Amino acid sequence: MKRTAGELAALLGGALDGEPGESIDNVAELEAAGPGDLSYAEPRYANRVPSSRASCVLVSEGAFPGKTTITVRNPKAAFARAAGWLMPAVRPEPGVDPTAVVRPGARLGTGVHIGAHVVVEADAVIGSGTAVYPGCHIAAGCRIGENCTIRSNVVLYPGVEIGRRVVLHAGVVVGSDGFGYVRDGDEYVQFPQLGQVRIEDDVEIGANSTIDRGSLGSTRIERGAKLDNLVHVAHNVRIGARTVIAAQTGVSGSCDIGDDAVIAGQVGVADHVRIDAGGVVGAQCGIPSGKRIRAGRVFWGTPARPLDDIKIQQAHISRLPKMAAELARLRGLVEQMIEQGDETGG
Amino acid sequence: MKRTAGELAALLGGALDGEPGESIDNVAELEAAGPGDLSYAEPRYANRVPSSRASCVLVSEGAFPGKTTITVRNPKAAFARAAGWLMPAVRPEPGVDPTAVVRPGARLGTGVHIGAHVVVEADAVIGSGTAVYPGCHIAAGCRIGENCTIRSNVVLYPGVEIGRRVVLHAGVVVGSDGFGYVRDGDEYVQFPQLGQVRIEDDVEIGANSTIDRGSLGSTRIERGAKLDNLVHVAHNVRIGARTVIAAQTGVSGSCDIGDDAVIAGQVGVADHVRIDAGGVVGAQCGIPSGKRIRAGRVFWGTPARPLDDIKIQQAHISRLPKMAAELARLRGLVEQMIEQGDETGG
Amino acid sequence: MKRTAGELAALLGGALDGEPGESIDNVAELEAAGPGDLSYAEPRYANRVPSSRASCVLVSEGAFPGKTTITVRNPKAAFARAAGWLMPAVRPEPGVDPTAVVRPGARLGTGVHIGAHVVVEADAVIGSGTAVYPGCHIAAGCRIGENCTIRSNVVLYPGVEIGRRVVLHAGVVVGSDGFGYVRDGDEYVQFPQLGQVRIEDDVEIGANSTIDRGSLGSTRIERGAKLDNLVHVAHNVRIGARTVIAAQTGVSGSCDIGDDAVIAGQVGVADHVRIDAGGVVGAQCGIPSGKRIRAGRVFWGTPARPLDDIKIQQAHISRLPKMAAELARLRGLVEQMIEQGDETGG
Repeated sequence: MKRTAGELAALLGGALDGEPGESIDNVAELEAAGPGDLSYAEPRYANRVPSSRASCVLVSEGAFPGKTTITVRNPKAAFARAAGWLMPAVRPEPGVDPTAVVRPGARLGTGVHIGAHVVVEADAVIGSGTAVYPGCHIAAGCRIGENCTIRSNVVLYPGVEIGRRVVLHAGVVVGSDGFGYVRDGDEYVQFPQLGQVRIEDDVEIGANSTIDRGSLGSTRIERGAKLDNLVHVAHNVRIGARTVIAAQTGVSGSCDIGDDAVIAGQVGVADHVRIDAGGVVGAQCGIPSGKRIRAGRVFWGTPARPLDDIKIQQAHISRLPKMAAELARLRGLVEQMIEQGDETGG
Repeated sequence: MKRTAGELAALLGGALDGEPGESIDNVAELEAAGPGDLSYAEPRYANRVPSSRASCVLVSEGAFPGKTTITVRNPKAAFARAAGWLMPAVRPEPGVDPTAVVRPGARLGTGVHIGAHVVVEADAVIGSGTAVYPGCHIAAGCRIGENCTIRSNVVLYPGVEIGRRVVLHAGVVVGSDGFGYVRDGDEYVQFPQLGQVRIEDDVEIGANSTIDRGSLGSTRIERGAKLDNLVHVAHNVRIGARTVIAAQTGVSGSCDIGDDAVIAGQVGVADHVRIDAGGVVGAQCGIPSGKRIRAGRVFWGTPARPLDDIKIQQAHISRLPKMAAELARLRGLVEQMIEQGDETGG
Repeated sequence: MKRTAGELAALLGGALDGEPGESIDNVAELEAAGPGDLSYAEPRYANRVPSSRASCVLVSEGAFPGKTTITVRNPKAAFARAAGWLMPAVRPEPGVDPTAVVRPGARLGTGVHIGAHVVVEADAVIGSGTAVYPGCHIAAGCRIGENCTIRSNVVLYPGVEIGRRVVLHAGVVVGSDGFGYVRDGDEYVQFPQLGQVRIEDDVEIGANSTIDRGSLGSTRIERGAKLDNLVHVAHNVRIGARTVIAAQTGVSGSCDIGDDAVIAGQVGVADHVRIDAGGVVGAQCGIPSGKRIRAGRVFWGTPARPLDDIKIQQAHISRLPKMAAELARLRGLVEQMIEQGDETGG
């Protein structure tokens, strides 16, 4: 879509400096940008604005004579919003592809897109404006809210509940059986995996991630949480609102992760862990069973500890060669003194 | 299904105490349970039985006046079995969905369910009572045993053999090429990946896990093994009977994992590792190439070592600040003595 | 296919010793081989050649009276090539399955196979000789080169570019949104994920791996790179030519991995890391944000360091109990000397 710098300033509520009629139809990084592009500069890169060829740059302060800029509080966030306006995601056309199978009793809202070879089972409900891409299987009794984007080959097991504006990327599986067995003599009996999964509004889940259903209770991913690719969420986990989890992290059964937590990639969270609201966990961290992670310090390592403590310990370990040398020197001195003492004494 | 406490006691072979006619139609955790629910109490939670509102509780010992209880050897296992009786998994109706493609030469047993958009290639055999959910691709020559559950979008490459009562969760891939290349000058040539995969009876594999075929020999997952989500099993691996592997663990080529091993989540097993029957490996452990893990001790860390040894080492590391202080103190004393000696001597 | 030892020697450009008419129709490891099998022996296993029952063995040197051998420079690579000739991969028949959906504007080359329930969207281009297995979704504007193998249930998001002879295993997702959000007050706004993915010739990607599109630029996997199963590649990453990445490794946004690098399994590469051409990274290694990994030394551990350095540090740590004992002994000696000095002095 083509907009002018003036229109963008109005949309973003920012202060325009330069040509209001400057035409914009694309977005780019500051240094890759050319005519027609909108870009942005965070404060530390303000010095790169004058040499950018972007038609308009979002900045947080400063004057850039000869450039068209819009001053906003948070240039990167404003840029992200502007990109959504300039280049809105292409939504597939409403309608049900003739190759899709929609079972009797399933209910579709208005403007729903059901792609080729999708299966929507009995009593599933799909909210208005939601798009279900090819090859998805929406099992019986699932409820998907409005304006969701369910990418290709997603599988929802029976009874999964999805809020509004949720994005599930390709290959996501939601509602699979939790991993729970009871050893009984020489064999394993599956513990019942009969619970629910509830995914709230504005959640996004990355490609090929897997979310298990509760065993007896529920697995819940709360409003605005963002999960990256290949993340594993086990049964009866709660992931709090706006919590962010990077790729390949695994969360074991019955964990409770608070709101606004930040969990890096390849983290392993053992069962019954509690992460407080706002907790921060570094990449590849391993959190032992039942542990509580408090907010205010970054946790890291396996087993997880405050990063500052690990750094102090690492410093001590780094000094080991020096300690060993010092110890050898002292031993030499002491032995020499003993020898001299013996000589003196003898 | 509705049962009475008396019927359940008979089914479980347990001793009923209380009302045999108590009606039960659901299961719940002890504290969440209400009327109509069956629950269970492991010995350490026996004190919570009197206050539970469950209609019937499975216990291992003790008397609970006013409550209806069934005394069994293993309450949790009995509860799991009882849940299977009370709430049997809903199996899809026998029959082949009209949108499925079953190639000539494929053979289906009685009572087989073939879901929408499934593809069953030539010469594949699907045992009686097996359900194949929508979107699966069963390639040529695969053999699936009786009463299996193959969830949506599972892919079996050609010639894969699956036993009876096997459960493959959504998105599982079995029989993909192993990761083997030979460097030849400036390029890689794929080593032949022509072997088999055999998955034995009662195996369960979690969502989006991947099991590669053997290169020249076979990959084998033996009777009753349980794999969680996003597990990777490479070419020519053997996983022994009843071995349990938690989520996101990876097993490299030619490993031999014995029966009844327990491997936690995010473990990395390098190639040609041998884990003895009954071996136990903790979460995120990294086992180096060719190593043997013996039973009887828990292994942990990267590289994997007995947990006890790691704890002793950790204790030594924790004392480093104290050691450094002690060393400084000694140095002071020794230097003082030398000085005094010099003075005395001088 | 049946060949003779003489034909194979000619194909491989090797020197035949023994029966040129020896018939060969299969391949096997040296010790499992029988009549009709071709095998190979790397130099260190040459002593096993005489007892092998293989009809023909590829060797690098030596004479084996009574055996039919072909002497080649690199027996394992020659074996891999020979296996490709003897047992060429079965390609599905050219043609479009009647259940597939090919949208107007999509262009298919000659000899293309489009499997059952595949969806090829508008303006997608599929090169001659390429096979797309059942259940794949090739979105609008994708371009796939010649002679590719796209296994079942692969998903390509819009605009993905794939070179020639590329193999994507089942469940691979290419072109999903990168994981980038901007925190703005109390919510996250998605950073634009509008870039491209380009996968060059001869790349192979393992089952259920995920490759995100660039945010504003491109994600590129260069010629001949090989990725194992369940690998995650984030937005704007470059993976150099012939680089090999083992299973479950994750590469975060904007990393630059050079040509001919070797990255083991379960490695975590944080954002903006640079790995030089030829760099080697051991299993489960964690490379911190922005770090550069140079070629010539193996890197290992979290945070990643040269393996040699880690070994030296480990040796120091292992000596800690001895150091503690030595320190205690010295303290005893010093205290004794002080006491004696006091006595002497007093």
